[in-house]
Formats: sequence, C-alpha cells, structure tokens
Amino acid sequence: MDVSTETQDNAPRRRGRRPAGEDTRRALLEAARRSFAENGFAGATVRAMATEAGVDAAMVNHWFGGKEGLFAAAMELPVDPKQISEMLLTGPLEEMGERIVRTFLGVWDGAGGGAFVALMRSASSNENAARMLREFISTMVFGPIAKRVGPDRPDLRASLCGTQIAGLGMVRYVIKLEPLASADHDTLATSVGPNLQRYLTGDLGL
Amino acid sequence: MDVSTETQDNAPRRRGRRPAGEDTRRALLEAARRSFAENGFAGATVRAMATEAGVDAAMVNHWFGGKEGLFAAAMELPVDPKQISEMLLTGPLEEMGERIVRTFLGVWDGAGGGAFVALMRSASSNENAARMLREFISTMVFGPIAKRVGPDRPDLRASLCGTQIAGLGMVRYVIKLEPLASADHDTLATSVGPNLQRYLTGDLGL
Repeated sequence: MDVSTETQDNAPRRRGRRPAGEDTRRALLEAARRSFAENGFAGATVRAMATEAGVDAAMVNHWFGGKEGLFAAAMELPVDPKQISEMLLTGPLEEMGERIVRTFLGVWDGAGGGAFVALMRSASSNENAARMLREFISTMVFGPIAKRVGPDRPDLRASLCGTQIAGLGMVRYVIKLEPLASADHDTLATSVGPNLQRYLTGDLGL
Repeated sequence: MDVSTETQDNAPRRRGRRPAGEDTRRALLEAARRSFAENGFAGATVRAMATEAGVDAAMVNHWFGGKEGLFAAAMELPVDPKQISEMLLTGPLEEMGERIVRTFLGVWDGAGGGAFVALMRSASSNENAARMLREFISTMVFGPIAKRVGPDRPDLRASLCGTQIAGLGMVRYVIKLEPLASADHDTLATSVGPNLQRYLTGDLGL
C-alpha cells in the first residue's frame, strides 16, 4: 500500500509546484500503457518505452522498481504483481487457496474497492485494458503459480483461478451483494479458499 | 433466445415504418429501468410502471409475459430469469453445479457474449445497473435455489454462486483468457461444476 502511494503520486509532499520530472513520469506511464497493450508484457521492452517517453531507462527502476512495477502503475494496480506472487508462494501448499483470498481481499479492501471497480470498467469497455488484465492473470500471478503447484493443465488452472478471483471482486465491490460484500476475511477465506485450492491442485475431472 | 429477439426489437419485420406501440413500449422499458433501480424487484409494481408510461398494465403481460420478463427486457438479459431458475431446478440435485454452468454458457454463448460484456460495463459504471444485477443473483436465480437446496446460510451460498458465475463470464467474455475463453461446455461443466455444487450444498467450513 505504501509502495503504491509512493509510486503513484507524490502530491502530499509536493503540492503547490509541479516537480520537473512529473511530465516525463506521466509520459513514461502513457508509453507503457500503449506498449504493454500492443506488445504484451513479455514483448514490451523497458528501453523502448523509456526512449519513447524521452527518459533514461534507469529511471524506470528508480521510479517503479522495474518492469513489473511499471506495469502495475500503468494498470493502476494497488500493488506490484511480483509482490503478490511472492506472498502467495510463501507458506504451506495446502493453504494456498485461503492465502490467495486473504491476499486479494487485503489489497482490494486496502485500496477501498474503488480501484477494482475502475479496473472492471476499463476492462469491459477497452480491449487494451482487457489484454493487460489477461497478462496479469496468466503471466504474472496465477500462471506461474499453477505451473509450480498444479499437477496438470496449468493454463486452464490459472484461468479457473482467474474466474474465482475476478468474480469475488465483482460481487464484493461492483455488484455489492450481501452478505458477501461485508463478510470478513476469515469467512471468505474459509468458504472460497477450498474452491481455489481445487482449481490449483485438485482433480479437475478432465 | 427467440423470446429475446422478439421482445427487444421487432426491427426485422417492421423496418421502414415505426409501429404505433413502439414509443409506448420504449417508455415502459424506461419507466421499468427507473422503477426497478429505485424500488428493487419486489418493490416495483407493474401498475405504477405502466401508469408512468401511459399504457394499460395488461400490455406488460402481452409484451413481456409478466414482471420477470419486463425486468429481463429492462436489463437487456437474453432470457427471462424465471426460465433460468426452472431449467436449473429440473434434474438431479447432485448435478446442479454442472447444470448451472451449462445453462449460463448456453445463454451467454447464444447471445454472442456481447450482452454479458455490456452488462458488466453498465454494472461497473452505474449503481442502478449494479442493483439490478444484485436482484438478478439474489432474488431471482441463486437466492431461491440456495433456499431450496442449501443446508444453511442460503444468502451467503447464493452470493458465493454469484462470484463463480460472474467470474466465469468475466474471464470468458471480457478478459478473454485462454484456454478458458474457447473451452467447450463439457470441459467447463466438469471443471467448474463441482465448485458451484460445493457453494450450494457442500460444507462451507463455517
């Protein structure tokens, strides 16, 4: 959360005058959005995005901590997807489903839910945003996890996890259906976790 | 599907001149959207909506087959939610999870997926649309089913089913993540069905 506030906007410390680097930082985010959308996460290069924005590639590390952080900022994600993967892979395998629920709820509730609503609005009206969400699920979060822990069909398992997590966010923050919208994290980890666990490590019946 | 084409727009048969009833039919749909959004499905009355649109309440039955059909048309759903519930409740209880997956995929794929994308776009940018989707899940489809087959906590079970079905639609039609986006109905019924079954009739661990 602190990371996000820091990288998204330093306004609280700088209000009143615009720092020299702000325009180039904004230009870099625009170049990143365009390039990630056109080339995908793997195809987009930090060097090309930096060149397009007229900044040194080293500034990407300085401002965003690397390519993943730049992607997160370009998508207006509240946290870096690399951090999410690390959190999910730390701890017992059989509790991974519950951990996924707790991690996402922590990130989303921490950001007030509004970031998720904005993401869904973008994804459902803009193919570039949809593509970035695809990358987020498949390349950054659930793809690597399913490849590591899934007994078979990692790509299908990753997309099944995507259905449960995207739907959890939809019902909690967009549709706001009770009692789920105000259920505590323990209730949701216990009720939703085993379903994610089956998608990751269970028998899919196929 | 035929019902939807018929009730949404009779353009193919009528192109070229506007029939006398079309303006009042449109006025009725507008009154319905406003009233369902303001009062919820239970609170909205057919009589008040018809009066507001300046039509006889009998026309609601004639045009839409009743209040549920009017709701479906106002939400631009491809089928009447009452028909969905009936399909889901017909057949063995232990296959209900798979049946839910097959029914929704049949409806959505039949409508080309675009209707689902439009629904998500509305719900994430408009509180009225979100409220109607809430009613659809809780009052019309999963709420009644969970009350009938769930051993406990029917409202939580209904909203959990909502997460899985909304997420399935998001990943298949909005995010379009492969291999799920083009997986056949058998694969999805087998892999997703048991998770819905647990939400409806299983032990939630609470």
